[in-house]
Amino acid sequence: MEEILNYIGIGGAFALAMSGALKAMGKKFDPFGVLIIAFVTAVGGGTLRDILLEDRTVFWLTEVSYIYFIIAGAVIALIFRKRLAYFHKTLLFFDAIGLALYTIMGVQIGIEFELSFINCIIMGTLTGAFGGVVRDILVNEIPVIFRKEIYATVSIVGGMIYWGLVKLEVGNVYAQIIPIMLIIIARLFIMYYKVSFPTIYRDEK
Amino acid sequence: MEEILNYIGIGGAFALAMSGALKAMGKKFDPFGVLIIAFVTAVGGGTLRDILLEDRTVFWLTEVSYIYFIIAGAVIALIFRKRLAYFHKTLLFFDAIGLALYTIMGVQIGIEFELSFINCIIMGTLTGAFGGVVRDILVNEIPVIFRKEIYATVSIVGGMIYWGLVKLEVGNVYAQIIPIMLIIIARLFIMYYKVSFPTIYRDEK
Amino acid sequence: MEEILNYIGIGGAFALAMSGALKAMGKKFDPFGVLIIAFVTAVGGGTLRDILLEDRTVFWLTEVSYIYFIIAGAVIALIFRKRLAYFHKTLLFFDAIGLALYTIMGVQIGIEFELSFINCIIMGTLTGAFGGVVRDILVNEIPVIFRKEIYATVSIVGGMIYWGLVKLEVGNVYAQIIPIMLIIIARLFIMYYKVSFPTIYRDEK
Repeated sequence: MEEILNYIGIGGAFALAMSGALKAMGKKFDPFGVLIIAFVTAVGGGTLRDILLEDRTVFWLTEVSYIYFIIAGAVIALIFRKRLAYFHKTLLFFDAIGLALYTIMGVQIGIEFELSFINCIIMGTLTGAFGGVVRDILVNEIPVIFRKEIYATVSIVGGMIYWGLVKLEVGNVYAQIIPIMLIIIARLFIMYYKVSFPTIYRDEK
Repeated sequence: MEEILNYIGIGGAFALAMSGALKAMGKKFDPFGVLIIAFVTAVGGGTLRDILLEDRTVFWLTEVSYIYFIIAGAVIALIFRKRLAYFHKTLLFFDAIGLALYTIMGVQIGIEFELSFINCIIMGTLTGAFGGVVRDILVNEIPVIFRKEIYATVSIVGGMIYWGLVKLEVGNVYAQIIPIMLIIIARLFIMYYKVSFPTIYRDEK
Repeated sequence: MEEILNYIGIGGAFALAMSGALKAMGKKFDPFGVLIIAFVTAVGGGTLRDILLEDRTVFWLTEVSYIYFIIAGAVIALIFRKRLAYFHKTLLFFDAIGLALYTIMGVQIGIEFELSFINCIIMGTLTGAFGGVVRDILVNEIPVIFRKEIYATVSIVGGMIYWGLVKLEVGNVYAQIIPIMLIIIARLFIMYYKVSFPTIYRDEK
């Protein structure tokens, strides 16, 4: 279990580091700026989660391997910059993977800390999405989570499904793989077809 | 005492949630974006306060009732959106109530933690105003606190008056109600008459 | 040793407070807005460091003298506003001093907490540069660290030199003064001659 959480965490960090690096390169940041944005995007959500929870050391202070994978993700994004640029949605693809992996990880940690249902879901969404929020604040944009394509909703619903599967005592690997796949697929589907909530501002100019 | 602090806290959370929701709707966020901004505005100041103080659990992890009141505030703001829009100053009115309630709560907690005078005042202003600062950062505006109508000053002076009343051992209910009313009235008065500091940049172009 | 760290800390706070105040005045903030930006710029990096490290109380809650020096820095900047404006690079000069002092302080604390090499460097850069990042976010600009003149690089390299000197057991005063001077000189040199990384975006339009 601990092992699986660790793989999930490192996979999410790698994906989010690439997502952050691509965003920073889109803004023409210098290489160290790219590295910092990659780092913040990758660890932002988990860091806030660890700060909020008492008696939890911030994960990247003790598990240094995270930092190496983040640097690797940023360097790969820097090197394959032009190739990645061919695929319009590359940034959002890695973002979806990171969102899915970190949402599940956050809900799992919330359950371990015996938080209430609603706080488990908040921990999931926060772990999954906060890194991207900080990334967008740092490059001076309104965070994508607030406006685009049901971003937070996917994380919240995915977290709820995971919470339900754990409480139903579904074997742990399935309980994780199913909501992870659901979040990624839902996020990409919604992105591709540009699904969005029916606007609540319709009859206003 | 503990009881009173709790009512103050929940009242402040409710008011700030409405203030955040109204701001987010002004930016045409989707419903979950509105909910997240409402949440962050309501808990931002208190969360930072609890993180800064050692041995204090972040309040909304244990007192889940806050979260329900915040959701209620956001939903009410969503439903009565158009009606609230008639009153130009609605956003700022709820903001003033939240500022007042949370400033007093922050100073009170600072006193309980036996902080120095200046740190008590900082805790008050931070609890009262930081949620609004995060709200403004998230919607990509310069936080209102830095520019408009003596916002922080009202919180600082109100916090000082509360600190003085507590040290003079005025009965607690009065010690709280007086500075709370003073902050709300001063904030609304200043807003209405657009009072501002005499500019220090006068003789510069 | 503890003594020296304290002088370094207070010197850095004073320099960063002036840097923050000058920036806020450039945006025509009111006096309390100027004070708040000065405070955040001065304590932002160290506060994040203390929050990330377990069992470390946020420094300005116990060492109140920091707050007085920050207020002094802001007030001096307010009073000598016009005189300081004659020197175009004043803001950046104080920023360079603060960056240098706080980088060394952060690495030193990382070593005391027995963090790994890479986390010591992160603590240094974070302590040195995060206050300026928050300052820039609050005034709604893209943080200077991500784009201008090798800002973060100077802090990272300076931190590495300091780490090496400590591990080589060079006497402590030299181990501190040498990288502090190097960071300040490198930062000013780079600024003056507008050195920057060869762009990695050359062959893209």
